[in-house]
Amino acid sequence: MPRLTAAGSAYPAPMLDVTQWFGSETSLAQLRGQVVMIEAFQMLCPGCISYGLPQAQRVHKLFPDVAVLGLHTVFEHHEVTGPAALKVFLDEFGIFFPVGVDRHDGQRMPVTMRAYELQGTPSTLLVDRAGNLRFTHLGAVPELELGAMLGELRAEPAPA
Amino acid sequence: MPRLTAAGSAYPAPMLDVTQWFGSETSLAQLRGQVVMIEAFQMLCPGCISYGLPQAQRVHKLFPDVAVLGLHTVFEHHEVTGPAALKVFLDEFGIFFPVGVDRHDGQRMPVTMRAYELQGTPSTLLVDRAGNLRFTHLGAVPELELGAMLGELRAEPAPA
Amino acid sequence: MPRLTAAGSAYPAPMLDVTQWFGSETSLAQLRGQVVMIEAFQMLCPGCISYGLPQAQRVHKLFPDVAVLGLHTVFEHHEVTGPAALKVFLDEFGIFFPVGVDRHDGQRMPVTMRAYELQGTPSTLLVDRAGNLRFTHLGAVPELELGAMLGELRAEPAPA
Amino acid sequence: MPRLTAAGSAYPAPMLDVTQWFGSETSLAQLRGQVVMIEAFQMLCPGCISYGLPQAQRVHKLFPDVAVLGLHTVFEHHEVTGPAALKVFLDEFGIFFPVGVDRHDGQRMPVTMRAYELQGTPSTLLVDRAGNLRFTHLGAVPELELGAMLGELRAEPAPA
Repeated sequence: MPRLTAAGSAYPAPMLDVTQWFGSETSLAQLRGQVVMIEAFQMLCPGCISYGLPQAQRVHKLFPDVAVLGLHTVFEHHEVTGPAALKVFLDEFGIFFPVGVDRHDGQRMPVTMRAYELQGTPSTLLVDRAGNLRFTHLGAVPELELGAMLGELRAEPAPA
Repeated sequence: MPRLTAAGSAYPAPMLDVTQWFGSETSLAQLRGQVVMIEAFQMLCPGCISYGLPQAQRVHKLFPDVAVLGLHTVFEHHEVTGPAALKVFLDEFGIFFPVGVDRHDGQRMPVTMRAYELQGTPSTLLVDRAGNLRFTHLGAVPELELGAMLGELRAEPAPA
Repeated sequence: MPRLTAAGSAYPAPMLDVTQWFGSETSLAQLRGQVVMIEAFQMLCPGCISYGLPQAQRVHKLFPDVAVLGLHTVFEHHEVTGPAALKVFLDEFGIFFPVGVDRHDGQRMPVTMRAYELQGTPSTLLVDRAGNLRFTHLGAVPELELGAMLGELRAEPAPA
Repeated sequence: MPRLTAAGSAYPAPMLDVTQWFGSETSLAQLRGQVVMIEAFQMLCPGCISYGLPQAQRVHKLFPDVAVLGLHTVFEHHEVTGPAALKVFLDEFGIFFPVGVDRHDGQRMPVTMRAYELQGTPSTLLVDRAGNLRFTHLGAVPELELGAMLGELRAEPAPA
């Protein structure tokens, strides 16, 4: 069963190194005090379309106090999944939360994806009110368990 | 969106007035300190079989620290849903949490069902560590939201 | 992939030896000329409730020219799944096609179940317009494949 | 309920005017004698991904005697759904049947899409053994009904 890292042993979530935002521009620093869910995806990844992004959309709709962000962590097929294609994808699939494009620096995996040590897509990340990374998971997360983790993080007090 | 009643305005969950337990006998008093989920059902109720009981089974499996209980609140077709039939049903459907039979006193609705003012089945009830009733819902509860409520209740401190 | 027995090598479907019908009384002899789907079930069998009977209900609704019948082939828990219980079950689960109760003669498996050599429930049987048994399957039948078999049987000419 | 056009009142399926094939090149003329299912889709159309293409994949897998073809009928977002993007899409989503790219002639809708008078995507087309168009449907087709239509078409004799 997926579980939160204990608050005491978590480390600060790395900065989102993003070259372009769709929807409103944002940052983890700005969201300090809120629970944040980040869905790392690629627009032509079947698991992202069939379960990762739909789950992020449900969280976005059901929990107005949780900041949901998409992170487009392209590590293959860059030539056909650039910003113009991503924009169409977000419109067609009705993604209404902010989505940032992870920065490339010449390596296969983009910068933020490496900073979070992600193994692939879709990956789901949870950041607590204090800005610490409490959960990272590649693949499907059962709804009950994601709900329980969000419920627990929302119940934690905001940092002073 | 279903929500918990605030801890401050909740009242104590009524006693489970049960004539017979399947699985181990229990009571809310014994479970004080734990989060409790009660699934009120009837064995020949389609919604109970298709979503209410399966959800209770998932919670039972995923959250070992949550006490899941079934309450057989028969208000129709008593003649074919008595304890012998219920025992077969629980075996066939693999219900491994304790199930109590709500007591009848001659009125249409059984006693505990009336005490909780339930309108039908399946109904899902959540009781906090202090023994207060924090949630009552007739019909389906989305998994994300049930998870969030369980996460929140589990995050509350146990009473002294 | 489940397949129809070729028309040439099929044998006549055994008589339905039924002690009581719910809905209108019927027989395979009366239905000669029509494609018939028989769903053999027990009312407290989880697979029957979760996929066997719902599929039979869909076929009943979608193919007015196919005769859908239920056969209650009880081979365990007779004491709590008698006709009174079955009647409640059929009402509660909205089973609108005729359902016959397979006759018991003291052996574990009832008479018609043995005549069809069924191994358990749910079992799906298809009988062609000439009254021959063309398909017997224990467990889930994919919708596409059931549809294809029904389409093929419906396309066969009625016997003279 | 979706239904086949009667064989007697159907007209010949228009030629597939395709600029490029992925998988093996084919044509309706070559497939005369076989039942053909054509799935008209766009690679960034949510309904195509969630139900249209998966259904075509199931038919392709379950009915080796049915020729399944994809037709990429792009009428919006051409700039990001060209052949290079489509190739990646087909690889990532495991589409193993032949897919042709509908030809554009300057109008909004591509040529084959107009010849078939399609209203949008996903659209499912069925062509009989004689090369006649027997079914056109925009949107989801229930599995049972698609199966029944395929069963009926497969039961028809091949033309002399």
